[in-house]
Amino acid sequence: MDRPMRLGLAGLGTVGASLARLLTTKRDAYALRAGRPIEIVAVSVRDRSKDRGVDLSAVEWFDDPVALATRGEIDLFVELVGGSQGAALDSVKAALNRGIPVVTANKALLAHHGVQLAKLAQRKGTTIFFEAAAAGGIPIIKTMREALRGNDVSRVYGILNGTCNYMLTRMEKEGIAFEDCLADAQRLGYAEADPTFDIGGFDAAHKLALLTSLAFGCEIDLESIFIEGISSVTNEDIEAAAELGYRVKLLAVAQRTETGIEQRVHPTMIPAHSALAQVDGVTNAVAVDTDLLGSILLVGPGAGGNATASAVLSDIIDAANGVTMPTFAVDPANLVPYRKARMRAHEGGYYIRLSVLDRVGAFASIARRMAENAISLESIVQRKREGEGDRETAPVILITHETTEAAVRKALDAVSRDGHLKGEPRMIRIEALD
Amino acid sequence: MDRPMRLGLAGLGTVGASLARLLTTKRDAYALRAGRPIEIVAVSVRDRSKDRGVDLSAVEWFDDPVALATRGEIDLFVELVGGSQGAALDSVKAALNRGIPVVTANKALLAHHGVQLAKLAQRKGTTIFFEAAAAGGIPIIKTMREALRGNDVSRVYGILNGTCNYMLTRMEKEGIAFEDCLADAQRLGYAEADPTFDIGGFDAAHKLALLTSLAFGCEIDLESIFIEGISSVTNEDIEAAAELGYRVKLLAVAQRTETGIEQRVHPTMIPAHSALAQVDGVTNAVAVDTDLLGSILLVGPGAGGNATASAVLSDIIDAANGVTMPTFAVDPANLVPYRKARMRAHEGGYYIRLSVLDRVGAFASIARRMAENAISLESIVQRKREGEGDRETAPVILITHETTEAAVRKALDAVSRDGHLKGEPRMIRIEALD
Repeated sequence: MDRPMRLGLAGLGTVGASLARLLTTKRDAYALRAGRPIEIVAVSVRDRSKDRGVDLSAVEWFDDPVALATRGEIDLFVELVGGSQGAALDSVKAALNRGIPVVTANKALLAHHGVQLAKLAQRKGTTIFFEAAAAGGIPIIKTMREALRGNDVSRVYGILNGTCNYMLTRMEKEGIAFEDCLADAQRLGYAEADPTFDIGGFDAAHKLALLTSLAFGCEIDLESIFIEGISSVTNEDIEAAAELGYRVKLLAVAQRTETGIEQRVHPTMIPAHSALAQVDGVTNAVAVDTDLLGSILLVGPGAGGNATASAVLSDIIDAANGVTMPTFAVDPANLVPYRKARMRAHEGGYYIRLSVLDRVGAFASIARRMAENAISLESIVQRKREGEGDRETAPVILITHETTEAAVRKALDAVSRDGHLKGEPRMIRIEALD
Repeated sequence: MDRPMRLGLAGLGTVGASLARLLTTKRDAYALRAGRPIEIVAVSVRDRSKDRGVDLSAVEWFDDPVALATRGEIDLFVELVGGSQGAALDSVKAALNRGIPVVTANKALLAHHGVQLAKLAQRKGTTIFFEAAAAGGIPIIKTMREALRGNDVSRVYGILNGTCNYMLTRMEKEGIAFEDCLADAQRLGYAEADPTFDIGGFDAAHKLALLTSLAFGCEIDLESIFIEGISSVTNEDIEAAAELGYRVKLLAVAQRTETGIEQRVHPTMIPAHSALAQVDGVTNAVAVDTDLLGSILLVGPGAGGNATASAVLSDIIDAANGVTMPTFAVDPANLVPYRKARMRAHEGGYYIRLSVLDRVGAFASIARRMAENAISLESIVQRKREGEGDRETAPVILITHETTEAAVRKALDAVSRDGHLKGEPRMIRIEALD
């Protein structure tokens, strides 16, 4: 058996501590699978005294990740510090500059600096592994970077945020209001004290940015992603969706279109009988549409110490086996610039919910605005009236045939201006699945 | 860019011809993704004259695969000949003996000779890639061999035969009888003229044998697999399953138990609302239960020229990138002997369908036989009577709580002997999914 692979581990939070414990308890099994022992020889953490359930007394301790990456006698640098700047960025650069491969779970780091870091890795003849940076325990990075290389991808999409999916699932199954779901998610540790990053769609967008690059061989462009979170989704929407044969999920979608590549994160209605619609709770799922395969779907845990450690371990063992490859599947010099398709050009079906004031001609006026914008309707449902007297409203739900985002926005603006609505129109995009 | 990888291709059937076309039409893209051009320099086929939609005039032609593998000036040998003996076996051995890596889609070859060939590959410092040998376009081999290496697997299971799944789906959705479904499947090219290999469960068993080795680090043991095909599944079973909240699928399951490893292929009832139950038609799906991940599920096309070529291409590009690893994830010297768990020790729920003759005491007698074997019943459904007079029967459906195969067989033998039944009892195993 070859000499041990010496591992430097920056960060001993939930994932890092799981990883350290697993590398100890499963040491022999991993040595067999990697063809050589894997040893943590150096760590960096802020607080040395904390009990992490693993004996690290024999390893070298560094005060900061950059010192570890710069001076540690290591063959592999594992970055579990987090953050898109500062110690994470500097330590990864330091390791790559020494030609040391890097394993990271840091989606923010790569979404912001991925191409630059990939170029540095390429120059130094090494690789950044990042299986844990998207969809946790689901091997979507390996699948896209390696398994689908014979294919041309037309769309990658999925449920990439467990917090949102947990909340939408409970809202649907138990009829609980958004705010109560959020409070529960926070109590259970599924949501942060400041939940904006998750429920605003930003976490999913970071992951999508990486998948887009792998799918289309393009540079990463986080800023171009259209992002709409789940905070405006109501129980009424979810209920109406169910009646129409749909379920509501926060989907992240990257799709090749005639005008460029769409990247979007938003609440989405998908057919209730699709496999993707069965993905409930904190589980994640990613689907890829390609020329050779049609469609494949991967479902699994999107977060958690052990699930994320599983992804990190797969990268570590690849590195131990001497695997090197371009970080984003092709030489970064060959990544094409990201060509953005404008969201207004997005084509699809739409769910529209209006609170229509009880006035003569209101409905005719709405129908006319749709027709003016060449929007044809697949179904129209009027639900039971709400309110009283002058302010009595009828919730009206429209499902459109395929149309454009621009047409829908224009029609809804006109409907709003016509003064027949109480409040703003609500709209949820429908994703066609095969 | 490095020098081209020279590829020798044995077999130009559906998959081989797809592969040859793709390597021509996508030549530049693949060169980018592999880091070097991939060139077919030699082929072997029986019939040179057939038009395969690709220009192979510049390559060297061999009369047989063994000659190609023995004398071809190649860096990689792609075996798409098929069969567990003869030319397939001899040519793969010849290539490995020269230290040349092999890509194969041949499940029968590996299910019968996999360990022997893996040892040869290991001695010669090379690798057998076989992504296409199980579940077609689904990257389950890469996932198990690489992505899950941090995990200990407790169960791997899935829908591994598209023909059976197509037939069961149509039987369910359209109420068509087994024989008519089979005739349609044959007309559409989803089933062979002799369909035994597919509908008898043997095809799925071959694939399962490979997954079992990857899951549990054990030697391959095709002969130990318990196999029951779908030909005894009736529309009545499928209908009754639906009423009880289940769907019927041909599942292949390998599972670690206290007494060893179970390997079994049989019609199975799974919860109708599970993601696996939504897998319809010729689509395949594989799920893996592990210690770190809980469960992951992969869904995609299980067959077809392009889907299989996609898997072969992923292997080819891995080989071009210089990836080497033990064929079955660990050094074959470290594969443990397969320790068989006897099918009679299998634990699970059971669906039992009896045609009970209309006699006083019949039902009491059946209930007593169940109790005698410590089988407790979750539900009992009596469906509408059939036949007339003395031969009038009532179809009775029992769903058991978890029990053992031995207990169920013993109880059903006793019930049969008691003489209250018309025909044989029918039994379908229920698989618990999380």
